[in-house]
Amino acid sequence: MLDTSPSTRVNAVLSRLDEALVKGDIEGAVDLFATDCYWRDLVTLTWNLKTMEGRDEVRAMLQSQLARIAPRGFVQDATQAASEAGGVTDGWFDFETAHARGYGHIRIRDGRIWTLLTTMSELKGHEEPKGIRRPLGAEHGHDRDRKTWTEKRAQEARELGYETQPYVLVIGGGQGGIALGARLRQLGVPTIIIEKNARPGDSWRKRYKSLCLHDPVWYDHLPYIPFPENWPVFTPKDKVGDWLEMYTKVMELNYWSSTTCKSARFDEAAQEWVVTVEREGKEVVLRPKQLVLATGMSGKANVPTFAGQDVFKGEQQHSSQHPGPDAYAGRKVVVIGSNNSAHDICAALWEAGADVTMVQRSSTHIVRSDTLMDIGLGDLYSERAVAAGVTTRKADLIFASLPYRIMHEFQIPLYDRMRERDKDFYDKLEAAGFMLDWGDDGSGLFMKYLRRGSGYYIDVGACDLVIDGSIKLKSGSDVSHLTEDAVVLKDGTVLPADLVVYATGYGSMNGWAADLISREVADKVGKCWGLGSDTTKDPGPWEGEQRNMWKPTQQDNLWFHGGNLHQSRHYSQYLSLQLKARMEGLPTPVYGLQEVHHKG
Amino acid sequence: MLDTSPSTRVNAVLSRLDEALVKGDIEGAVDLFATDCYWRDLVTLTWNLKTMEGRDEVRAMLQSQLARIAPRGFVQDATQAASEAGGVTDGWFDFETAHARGYGHIRIRDGRIWTLLTTMSELKGHEEPKGIRRPLGAEHGHDRDRKTWTEKRAQEARELGYETQPYVLVIGGGQGGIALGARLRQLGVPTIIIEKNARPGDSWRKRYKSLCLHDPVWYDHLPYIPFPENWPVFTPKDKVGDWLEMYTKVMELNYWSSTTCKSARFDEAAQEWVVTVEREGKEVVLRPKQLVLATGMSGKANVPTFAGQDVFKGEQQHSSQHPGPDAYAGRKVVVIGSNNSAHDICAALWEAGADVTMVQRSSTHIVRSDTLMDIGLGDLYSERAVAAGVTTRKADLIFASLPYRIMHEFQIPLYDRMRERDKDFYDKLEAAGFMLDWGDDGSGLFMKYLRRGSGYYIDVGACDLVIDGSIKLKSGSDVSHLTEDAVVLKDGTVLPADLVVYATGYGSMNGWAADLISREVADKVGKCWGLGSDTTKDPGPWEGEQRNMWKPTQQDNLWFHGGNLHQSRHYSQYLSLQLKARMEGLPTPVYGLQEVHHKG
Repeated sequence: MLDTSPSTRVNAVLSRLDEALVKGDIEGAVDLFATDCYWRDLVTLTWNLKTMEGRDEVRAMLQSQLARIAPRGFVQDATQAASEAGGVTDGWFDFETAHARGYGHIRIRDGRIWTLLTTMSELKGHEEPKGIRRPLGAEHGHDRDRKTWTEKRAQEARELGYETQPYVLVIGGGQGGIALGARLRQLGVPTIIIEKNARPGDSWRKRYKSLCLHDPVWYDHLPYIPFPENWPVFTPKDKVGDWLEMYTKVMELNYWSSTTCKSARFDEAAQEWVVTVEREGKEVVLRPKQLVLATGMSGKANVPTFAGQDVFKGEQQHSSQHPGPDAYAGRKVVVIGSNNSAHDICAALWEAGADVTMVQRSSTHIVRSDTLMDIGLGDLYSERAVAAGVTTRKADLIFASLPYRIMHEFQIPLYDRMRERDKDFYDKLEAAGFMLDWGDDGSGLFMKYLRRGSGYYIDVGACDLVIDGSIKLKSGSDVSHLTEDAVVLKDGTVLPADLVVYATGYGSMNGWAADLISREVADKVGKCWGLGSDTTKDPGPWEGEQRNMWKPTQQDNLWFHGGNLHQSRHYSQYLSLQLKARMEGLPTPVYGLQEVHHKG
Repeated sequence: MLDTSPSTRVNAVLSRLDEALVKGDIEGAVDLFATDCYWRDLVTLTWNLKTMEGRDEVRAMLQSQLARIAPRGFVQDATQAASEAGGVTDGWFDFETAHARGYGHIRIRDGRIWTLLTTMSELKGHEEPKGIRRPLGAEHGHDRDRKTWTEKRAQEARELGYETQPYVLVIGGGQGGIALGARLRQLGVPTIIIEKNARPGDSWRKRYKSLCLHDPVWYDHLPYIPFPENWPVFTPKDKVGDWLEMYTKVMELNYWSSTTCKSARFDEAAQEWVVTVEREGKEVVLRPKQLVLATGMSGKANVPTFAGQDVFKGEQQHSSQHPGPDAYAGRKVVVIGSNNSAHDICAALWEAGADVTMVQRSSTHIVRSDTLMDIGLGDLYSERAVAAGVTTRKADLIFASLPYRIMHEFQIPLYDRMRERDKDFYDKLEAAGFMLDWGDDGSGLFMKYLRRGSGYYIDVGACDLVIDGSIKLKSGSDVSHLTEDAVVLKDGTVLPADLVVYATGYGSMNGWAADLISREVADKVGKCWGLGSDTTKDPGPWEGEQRNMWKPTQQDNLWFHGGNLHQSRHYSQYLSLQLKARMEGLPTPVYGLQEVHHKG
């Protein structure tokens, strides 16, 4: 073969893969993979989010799934040129299965598949009504029983949950529930989203007033309606709230605000949930087939227990309850914690004229926002990426194509560059007594987020206040106890306080399952989030994917959805397709169901 | 020159045009134009919407404007291939003036410029904050006087109109006022929009319940936030309303709902308007520099006067007041008129079980919706166009590039095709007694819209009801008078009626100027809309552009904005740039100010 352009190489491997899979030649297919290979499948072959690592795992998966799924038609995407860098050729492809159409990404090294990503785009016969399939809106012709769009929508809103039952109930109406709800509506899956607050977006509006998204706009788009090009880089919290509210309205979601879930149990006989909710003060019993907890991976406040909390006479708040600084000018505030919320709250309190002390109990990873935008996200999510033709969808898929097992290897060099660029800054922070880390293996912020969902601050200004002593820092000692008017550290330091803020993070989402369903179900499902990386707060064994997120769990018909706006956008696609397939009664043979190694 | 590719030809002509203009060689520039040439300028050279027809008009414009405007840098847009068809080469180009950047389109025939379109994209130094210039949102660093985005927004909303004055006051908060307001906010022009209804979108919500947009979604996008790809083709009225409401909110417009304008006068000495409005029951006096009437080209109801209207004992409504059919089942209704509203209202009444008679007083142009979408709009505004790379902006510019003087020549063949395709349908309509026309010169619907804004129905089903007699038709006779319980026609026909609907259209927008400012100012400004085509309801002389729309008028600082969603989107760009330039004190020498030939 004389012509060895990247596209030719991609085409050759895809053709052979297609041929082997169509023939049922599993060994032939496995032979196309390198020894250290990764096949990440999002719902197409495995009806799961699953990464097969190494040829043996690829073989085992194909042995289980190949005949049932019938993948075929692997064809390079003619609109996306393949490319090569550093001995790795990468390209994009279309494919299909018996019931779905998919899209994928491939990396080839030494003529063999190094990484393969297969993702589901749509279910055959159940395509979304968009583009050429969009609804007509008007009903032309004449019909004496005509109901207008508005009348039909009002009827649906009135009857759903009372005269008719939703197929899916989503508990939690933040960005996660809303993005999922939007996709489910487009797929024609009757869905109710319940939310304890009065308006969509309130979970953002109610946070401390200086809060802005820490992720930039290119990373934050919702499905269907991207933010406009004049949208700010870091959206202020109330503006996120307003966007979510309008989105909920124009996407016509069945969104029950001011509604709380009182209890849920799975009726094995009927194979459906019995969920009691209180909607605007009235009890309603819902019987959805599927239950999604989208209560937020930062939803279940983690409040530490210290001796003396009962005798302390000032105010105590978890960071999620902190209203902002306005009432605390001239007051003494002790903030326990040193991650994002702690820094944001400390800075806002200092700006308002409070006397603020931050108690750093363990080391924290710090990255300056500008540096993170440039080095950490710039290739995928930035104006630069947009100008280079990297659409949001493409960026999401490129990111998804990196197997979790080796993702840190891609991340470490980026954080080495950040450390180098901002050396003076870090030196000053350490001189101020701040305990820094870069993750157990130096892989930085995003790996910390995926592994433990905590342990970092994206600096937007608070570090300078720590450096110059405006925010007082006590690091290296934990809290011993509280007195009537102070926090006492184990090293004996007494920190007088009118207010104590516990910026101590959040617990695993299966805590919600314990509260709403039962401890038994929560334990059966086990911990949510984390990769099993055997690093701090993410105990092994290795899972290969984030635990229990967006995929089947050990509890039938129970799902967890959440994460940042990027994840809410991207993974809602796969969760919505899994739910739709079940509603339509399509075969959904799950391969490699999540095992449970930790209870929460 | 051996290479005569379209791009080469476009490049050659643009280079010579650029050279001549930069040298101030007016004759050299004029010589590049064909004898029958058209140069349509949207705000760049003329600070007006103006079409120069023929070399003499091009010469005269350049003699007036060339030195003041300094157009230069005419360079073919490298991203848009030039093309050739039927002996006409067409291409796209960038250019600039002393104060602005522009974009244009050129058609070349026999080596000379046949049509030239020059449009203003942005003012130098006053570019919109979008893309790489988007706001940061968060204010990084620390600031003890920090105000959050929300606090600043609330302060602005509280103070504007009271402690500070808007530069622009827009009267009317439909799609026109909203689209203009969105552009003005992006340009940093302090603006208030006042609207009599309680919520943005109510002017749509309050119409008859079966109403859907007659234009398809591709034609209807607002600036900045296009409709998503799952949006219906023909948006139901309440859905338009909800979209406008959310748009107003997320674009952060200063939108005063439940506010009516009581009076306005121009204070010559201060060069500002004194406008008295009533906002939620309280009088507020505003002093904007610029006043925009965006009260709707279909805003000022035209109610005919007939003898006996005072003795008729049933209900009489203008079509804009008609609430929909629900209250009229089994009742006798006479609808005067045979255009869009008349047909929609008749069909909905028939569906509700009313006994409906349509009185057709003069001939009407009918086009079937599917046919119009396919033949009339499909090349520019459709999924087909989107797939072919015709963005909304490009479609708007292609449409704008056709000079009004010859636009009918492009339209006539399309309507000939429609007449051919739907021959059976038209034969049946005529057999039912319906009086058809195709515009005075056979140029069809869009020319009727531009010339007179009336005279047609886009058939979405009512015609079948006319054909089969479900909607009774009385055509060819005007109304003589009303009795206590009937409408009597001049031919003696007596039409018993419980309800008479006057679907009799709307008056010229300068009627609003008479109501709000004075008859004197309304007469000074003259008629709005229409081209002076010397066809029915559009008396000559020829104007070359739509009268008084989106451009300077004979009354200083008074502007008219309106039209369908397409026009609200596209022309709001040029109106907003004219207003911004005046606010910034840039030179805006207007060439060819609208003359007044008709009072209204």
